[in-house]
Amino acid sequence: MSGTIAEAAALLRAHSRIAVACHEGPDGDALGSLVGCGRTLARNGWDVALWAPGDAALPDDYAWLGYDDLRRDPPGDIGERLLVALDCGSAERLGTMGTEVAAMAAATLNIDHHGDNTLFADVDVVDPQAACTTILVHRLLEALDLPIDLDTATALYVGIVTDTGRFMYANADADCHRVAAALLERGVEVDEVFRRLYEGRPAGRALLLGRALSRLELRLGGRLAATWLTIADLDETGAAEADSEGAIDHLRAIRGVEVAALVREPRSGGGAVQKCSLRSADPAIDVSRIAHAGGGGGHPMAAGFSLEGTAADAIALVERELGGA
Amino acid sequence: MSGTIAEAAALLRAHSRIAVACHEGPDGDALGSLVGCGRTLARNGWDVALWAPGDAALPDDYAWLGYDDLRRDPPGDIGERLLVALDCGSAERLGTMGTEVAAMAAATLNIDHHGDNTLFADVDVVDPQAACTTILVHRLLEALDLPIDLDTATALYVGIVTDTGRFMYANADADCHRVAAALLERGVEVDEVFRRLYEGRPAGRALLLGRALSRLELRLGGRLAATWLTIADLDETGAAEADSEGAIDHLRAIRGVEVAALVREPRSGGGAVQKCSLRSADPAIDVSRIAHAGGGGGHPMAAGFSLEGTAADAIALVERELGGA
Repeated sequence: MSGTIAEAAALLRAHSRIAVACHEGPDGDALGSLVGCGRTLARNGWDVALWAPGDAALPDDYAWLGYDDLRRDPPGDIGERLLVALDCGSAERLGTMGTEVAAMAAATLNIDHHGDNTLFADVDVVDPQAACTTILVHRLLEALDLPIDLDTATALYVGIVTDTGRFMYANADADCHRVAAALLERGVEVDEVFRRLYEGRPAGRALLLGRALSRLELRLGGRLAATWLTIADLDETGAAEADSEGAIDHLRAIRGVEVAALVREPRSGGGAVQKCSLRSADPAIDVSRIAHAGGGGGHPMAAGFSLEGTAADAIALVERELGGA
Repeated sequence: MSGTIAEAAALLRAHSRIAVACHEGPDGDALGSLVGCGRTLARNGWDVALWAPGDAALPDDYAWLGYDDLRRDPPGDIGERLLVALDCGSAERLGTMGTEVAAMAAATLNIDHHGDNTLFADVDVVDPQAACTTILVHRLLEALDLPIDLDTATALYVGIVTDTGRFMYANADADCHRVAAALLERGVEVDEVFRRLYEGRPAGRALLLGRALSRLELRLGGRLAATWLTIADLDETGAAEADSEGAIDHLRAIRGVEVAALVREPRSGGGAVQKCSLRSADPAIDVSRIAHAGGGGGHPMAAGFSLEGTAADAIALVERELGGA
């Protein structure tokens, strides 16, 4: 049974010791919710343990929100704390011990926007209409009548920006813009957030993208867009292997293209091996079938395969498979 | 002398015959303003001529807003019409005959957000704090108490999205989000706008971006990122002039870059003229000062200038001005 923000606020007023957590493998909304909610409560009298479950390194993209006070294991005294789970569709999302920890907690509060939330807590505030969980955290802090300082406003804003694809996904509704307006009035520096989230890329990445795009080829009357990058391209541009990731999206966005193919030489292959990434721009075309033909695999919209040979060999294989489809 | 929205509304109420125009070489804000303002007035009793000055083809990106009722020459009876200039920093921005047409008009209204607007009209509503001109059009339509239908809401929203870099530039303030919220409540389909603005691009655009990025240069220890495109690049890639718009954002995103410069040869210049677009990646650097040194103008974060000479001449000018700053 889903509860109200007022019930969530009452539960928090009844517990001065809390653990605030987000899901394992956190994204911008999870970390923005964790930091924005947890630190605001800590500054206003709550005894807060901030818990980002899991062992894997937290993503670099959001490190500027500050990771110093985030613990990776649940607090030992969880039995005496209210557990506030943010952006978690289920207790399992709290990591390998998630279900056990939730059962041990003095009480549980579940704040989330996933439509398939399992409603695992004492109070579940689940609103699938909300664009992101930070919008629900904003509602909660307002219900508690707590001041939203600049750090918190920035953290909550990051959740909106990242979960709405910079306000461009279908979930970016009027409410999400109204909350954004309220947060900006707290002094959020939009261009600074933008820079931290989306800029500061090495020059090699732009140079590598330039090479990939300037040699792109359209085949099969424009249904296939293909390009390639070599170890020499990495060496000459000073780019890292990971810097080539974004190029395929540019191919996929071309009008009329059904399949985008990016062929790369992994450094480990010494130039004799090609890795071909595939993306479908048309739900009717399953690129994992093409990848299987090349001995690889993947999903219908994103797949890949490797072969010994040249980039031209890899592209010819894709062309043959797509053309015969 | 700058005027008020109330004065603008009064001027419109006093003139039932009007010509609504935007600047030559229109972008999303100019076309969104033109279409949103002009059509709403036409539907509410005004006799409206919609004028998009210039000879060059209008950009494909916004063709879905509808170009059928846009004329490229000023109406012959301009002497009997109120001229409403939208997003024009000066009368010259209305095209080669702009100053003359403005002088011939029965009266002139200037709605704009450029800080260096020359205040050329009978009533000038110039608000440099506004993120885009469509926000001012929204204010004007509200002052006139006119209903904003879905088409108009979408057109005004396009101006916000494009002029704020999808809500991520420093100008994307609380007011801009509040107007976005109001427009979304009219039913704007955000994901559809996104798809139309950012996907289904011609292949020539990707090829052109490839050329621009693969020849990018870092100067002044990486503070300046510069590149150029020629008429030959357009011919060889099959790209339109407008297809080069996005390249500068890739330059601006490079780590350590303070100013991005993209030099292009307009077809009309036959290769002898260079247009240099400038973007600042650092609020402390005002690129309109650099543009002024080249005889151009613009905003602190986005500006430009033209010169007769080579791309190297234009880049040298920027390097000299930025280096001496």
